Amino acid sequence: MVSCIFKNMDDEKYMRRAIQLAKKAMGKTCPNPVVGAVIVKDGEIIGEGYHRRAGFPHAEVEAIRSVKDKRKLLGSTMYVTLEPCNHYGRMPPCTLAILNSGIKRVVVAMEDPNPQSSHGTATLREKGIETKIGVLEREARELNEVFITNINKKRPFYALKAAMTLNGLIAVRGGNSQWITGEEARLYVHFLRSNFNAVLVGINTVHMDDSLLTCRLKKRVRQPFRIVLDAFLKISLSSRIFSAYPRKILIVCGEEISDEKQKKVRATGARIIKCKSKNGRIDLHDLSQKLLSLNICSVLVEGGSLVHGSFIKEGLVDKCFLFYGPLLCGSHGGFNAVGCDAPSSLSQALRLRDIKCRMLGEDILVEGKPCSAG
Amino acid sequence: MVSCIFKNMDDEKYMRRAIQLAKKAMGKTCPNPVVGAVIVKDGEIIGEGYHRRAGFPHAEVEAIRSVKDKRKLLGSTMYVTLEPCNHYGRMPPCTLAILNSGIKRVVVAMEDPNPQSSHGTATLREKGIETKIGVLEREARELNEVFITNINKKRPFYALKAAMTLNGLIAVRGGNSQWITGEEARLYVHFLRSNFNAVLVGINTVHMDDSLLTCRLKKRVRQPFRIVLDAFLKISLSSRIFSAYPRKILIVCGEEISDEKQKKVRATGARIIKCKSKNGRIDLHDLSQKLLSLNICSVLVEGGSLVHGSFIKEGLVDKCFLFYGPLLCGSHGGFNAVGCDAPSSLSQALRLRDIKCRMLGEDILVEGKPCSAG
Repeated sequence: MVSCIFKNMDDEKYMRRAIQLAKKAMGKTCPNPVVGAVIVKDGEIIGEGYHRRAGFPHAEVEAIRSVKDKRKLLGSTMYVTLEPCNHYGRMPPCTLAILNSGIKRVVVAMEDPNPQSSHGTATLREKGIETKIGVLEREARELNEVFITNINKKRPFYALKAAMTLNGLIAVRGGNSQWITGEEARLYVHFLRSNFNAVLVGINTVHMDDSLLTCRLKKRVRQPFRIVLDAFLKISLSSRIFSAYPRKILIVCGEEISDEKQKKVRATGARIIKCKSKNGRIDLHDLSQKLLSLNICSVLVEGGSLVHGSFIKEGLVDKCFLFYGPLLCGSHGGFNAVGCDAPSSLSQALRLRDIKCRMLGEDILVEGKPCSAG
Repeated sequence: MVSCIFKNMDDEKYMRRAIQLAKKAMGKTCPNPVVGAVIVKDGEIIGEGYHRRAGFPHAEVEAIRSVKDKRKLLGSTMYVTLEPCNHYGRMPPCTLAILNSGIKRVVVAMEDPNPQSSHGTATLREKGIETKIGVLEREARELNEVFITNINKKRPFYALKAAMTLNGLIAVRGGNSQWITGEEARLYVHFLRSNFNAVLVGINTVHMDDSLLTCRLKKRVRQPFRIVLDAFLKISLSSRIFSAYPRKILIVCGEEISDEKQKKVRATGARIIKCKSKNGRIDLHDLSQKLLSLNICSVLVEGGSLVHGSFIKEGLVDKCFLFYGPLLCGSHGGFNAVGCDAPSSLSQALRLRDIKCRMLGEDILVEGKPCSAG
């Protein structure tokens, strides 16, 4: 009994290390998950590895390779944050590498949601490997919220970001929104952008704010794609957005737009995605498929009001980052963070869970996930 | 130098105790301030007192009385959270009691903002008492925010309370607001009500929510007055509000309302206050004077949308209690927490300071004071 408790504590300890390793590649493995693995023998870590990026070896293989003296692997335990794959993709299945290694026990944080690579644990068990699933599962799922959404919902992971007054206005009369939040919150937004494959705004926001929408952290980071929803391709070619990384700009327009108009936009270096549209609003489900096929797995939806309204109405929100400046002001004629029709019952509102709130300078950041999210 | 530091530390220590004593009477001394006093001799507290309620002795006198052996007072130090009064009101001036007691040093947290009772410290100093002002002044001002506002602004202290979705809606289409926040937040509202002389709502809120607006804490508390802004005296006599403590209801209507209508309302036990009004909105400045003359020193303004809008527009907000349920929903046709025209520039928004935020169950409570508040 007591030894069982210690074993469970040890399992968590080593899994925590595996999670730490997985985190090193956060945002770099798309469309693959982040995965970390640790190999333990006689209470000592003898091997470690993580999946660095798509096309590189899986964490399990990296960990096995890291053990110089292969004899040590005999009778060892592997801790891995995601169920080992069991199919031939770019790499041979990890289950095979494990079976060939001499590892006798495999502890897994979470099952692979991808049916393609499924049943890795069952296969190992059939071959006589002791297996355990579910150690630090919550943490592991958190780590791969993007991947899980991509697999389960077959669309990008969408996080809604809004900076608003304490009564929900993202802009006052005339559209002015500078500045609702302070320096610290705005810096945090740049950090957020670096964690997403793309940021997305509506054409009104481009014309109103005329911001670069880049990630301006001092530490060199990969720039996210910048997606503009622009059903009628109204974007002004003198918009500031074109002044940086034009090849990382995606302009989304309706299917009926003339080639001439498209040519002019393409000449800036930006790419055009044509989507179904209705009443001047892009069909977000059609867009979702197209983004995923471009390996855009995670998108920070930065507004404005109508864009947020559409994503909420279509059930396309997986996480929220809500920033509040210390301001209150009249709402009539201003722009609310969620620009769509109010429901007639609160039961139809989007309910969030796992709410966290904290101060960022004089501002407040509230994070949460829809109760329906994975 | 070092002994000076220790003396300052001791001063803060004893002042903290005086503040603790003052807090015992929080909400009970109206229209007077809360005040606590401590008398110290040779590093030992020999006397304590606080002002229990209007008409009762001041804290200084209570503290002096608490010292049985009056010889001990000779050469002692008094710590008092508010400058001793220097005028004959219901009581003789505290400065006189101090001068007669043998106390040789008086440490004061904050000056008395009331010009009537001013210059107490100067008077003591003239008579050879050593004085020091400003020890824990911030804390002392916080303690008496109501009193300070009453004196400086010649009106009640107004705290705005709103329960809203994360994007600022206090009700959805049709006015439904049950329930945006959870049990814990709603309980906290009842605690808040017990700390104010009155709660205030608009007639639409009475007809929409039909709530009692009482304080329903299990611990027996004084019920706040319930004020209803009802310019045209449209209130339905079957409203639930009349079913509890009718004598603690104040219905505020315009000056032109017929006597007959008034009579019916008065028959419930409620009181009517007639105020100037314009376009169906009560003149809040006229109301403020009338409330203060009724010894209503602090009011919790609970909405709805238009009422909050009016108080903000008129600059009548001294504190905010903003509750957020974990919900997002469309805003078009819903009711925002601040129902008045949005400004055209964010610089015209009401800016809050001393922002605090914390979780109450699944909800968030944000507190703050307008930068312009005392």
